[in-house]
Amino acid sequence: MPGEFRIIEEFFSRDTKADGLVLGIGDDGAVLRPREGFDQVVATDTIVAGRHFPASLAAEDIGWRALAVNLSDIAAMGATPRFAFLNLTLANADTKWLRDFSRGFFELAEMSKTVLAGGDTTQGPLSITVTVIGEVPADEAITRSRAQPGDLVCVSGTPGDAAAGLELLMQGAGLDHPLVQRFRRPMPRLQLGANLRGRATAAIDISDGLLADLQHVLKASGVGARIELDRLPVSAALDEYSKDAKDFVLAGGDDYELCFCLPPAQLQVLQADDNGCEITVIGEIVAEPELAIVDADGKRYEPKRHGWEHFRMDAES
Amino acid sequence: MPGEFRIIEEFFSRDTKADGLVLGIGDDGAVLRPREGFDQVVATDTIVAGRHFPASLAAEDIGWRALAVNLSDIAAMGATPRFAFLNLTLANADTKWLRDFSRGFFELAEMSKTVLAGGDTTQGPLSITVTVIGEVPADEAITRSRAQPGDLVCVSGTPGDAAAGLELLMQGAGLDHPLVQRFRRPMPRLQLGANLRGRATAAIDISDGLLADLQHVLKASGVGARIELDRLPVSAALDEYSKDAKDFVLAGGDDYELCFCLPPAQLQVLQADDNGCEITVIGEIVAEPELAIVDADGKRYEPKRHGWEHFRMDAES
Repeated sequence: MPGEFRIIEEFFSRDTKADGLVLGIGDDGAVLRPREGFDQVVATDTIVAGRHFPASLAAEDIGWRALAVNLSDIAAMGATPRFAFLNLTLANADTKWLRDFSRGFFELAEMSKTVLAGGDTTQGPLSITVTVIGEVPADEAITRSRAQPGDLVCVSGTPGDAAAGLELLMQGAGLDHPLVQRFRRPMPRLQLGANLRGRATAAIDISDGLLADLQHVLKASGVGARIELDRLPVSAALDEYSKDAKDFVLAGGDDYELCFCLPPAQLQVLQADDNGCEITVIGEIVAEPELAIVDADGKRYEPKRHGWEHFRMDAES
Repeated sequence: MPGEFRIIEEFFSRDTKADGLVLGIGDDGAVLRPREGFDQVVATDTIVAGRHFPASLAAEDIGWRALAVNLSDIAAMGATPRFAFLNLTLANADTKWLRDFSRGFFELAEMSKTVLAGGDTTQGPLSITVTVIGEVPADEAITRSRAQPGDLVCVSGTPGDAAAGLELLMQGAGLDHPLVQRFRRPMPRLQLGANLRGRATAAIDISDGLLADLQHVLKASGVGARIELDRLPVSAALDEYSKDAKDFVLAGGDDYELCFCLPPAQLQVLQADDNGCEITVIGEIVAEPELAIVDADGKRYEPKRHGWEHFRMDAES
């Protein structure tokens, strides 16, 4: 019967010596020493079983995901992750589940050099909150609000795969199907995010769907965009899966790719870097505050799917 | 039908201009500029309906509580709170509930000068995670691990009241009963915590019960303690409520008072300060790593209640 303290000791206390970490897990709070000349970026997200992932998802994938969704926000701000805090609420302390969850979590933590510095475990319906503190040279964080008419609208990787992968997973497809893999193991675009500093005018990570998230950038920047249907990147696997592949690209959620705006002169410079992923120009920013998708003939296209909000309940119960 | 974005705008976006806050709510992450010469203390706790508070508790009190439990950790480290992040998971977006919750949350936030800088809302069984970032002059955070034989063991306020208040609340007592009030509105001891810097050798906040939490200090410091039953502070209301008042003091949870260790020479200096609460010496630290409670005759006392862990499930399900 491991209590809270044994759970933390057994599954989550790794060697937490790290630059800037004065005191890690095991006291009332963690003590950090921020680096001079750097700003901090703080991102926090809760994922709930049955809402953000199927309750049947492997514990290892849940552990990865809980961290990935936050690292993706850190990447979108152009920051480098430093410390994570984990609040784990679970119905019962199953040893195998905890071992698998922590393996998935630490696999990504180590890959991204993120140090788990604190958190808590508690009993309740399965949900996980992760908070990540990253750092970025002072005044260099990338926001959503500085996109300018004439900027290129770009996207990393191949959005839409994860939404298709989730559909496949729910239909019982194997875990190693390439689209299912893309849902199970979203890869935060940290290298790209860092390369966007001083180059991109705006960036956002795509958690709710490309169109829905691009809309946040347009609203915050007070501009519009013209997106060309033919330029949308479609993976071979998605193309094979659906004849409405472009709709998946436009509106599928859970991609954790980056959508960003770039003055044209910056494109070649960026593409010369190692970004860890493909970059595709999909359109441009326009002054008129409207988001238009056009096909090869310049005709307006209306996607069959729409992005989703994580909260869709009625106001008065 | 407010979605996630409307909930945040309507209930949680206050004017968030604050020293050190470069960018608040509304982007992928908040941007903070840490103060030079200061360490940061990060505390995070999840509270779950039916586990950490009765599901019937007023939304206003839940909002207060979610922040208070974290500010209490910040106080125990001797830090000053700066920024909070709120992850709110709730079954449905009831407008009145949200208004009440945010009122309770911001009442304490304003009182403690804590600025809400980010977070998210999501749908699921009611639970709230709050993460607080505080600051403390470099190297001055108070830990659990430096208690020394000969130190006085002290406690703030009157522990035990909250546990009695919870019992009363569950029995249907009025919300203004003084013990119920103590459960509903735990008051983080921030002024005291700040005054303990450079004076206390160890400190912890009492969330799981005085004995249970003091044990953490003793274990981390490699020492023991001798606690005198007659010195335990008992509020008039608790004394009237129970003939086992001392057992409430020793083992009642949810107090959010501070237990701390102090070299005897520091006591008068501390008591000369405005700490915002009473301080009582209840015993002393001894070399022998054991926690003994003794009565007026020096006889060992065995409390009838014990502290609780927030997680008591079986290992294998």
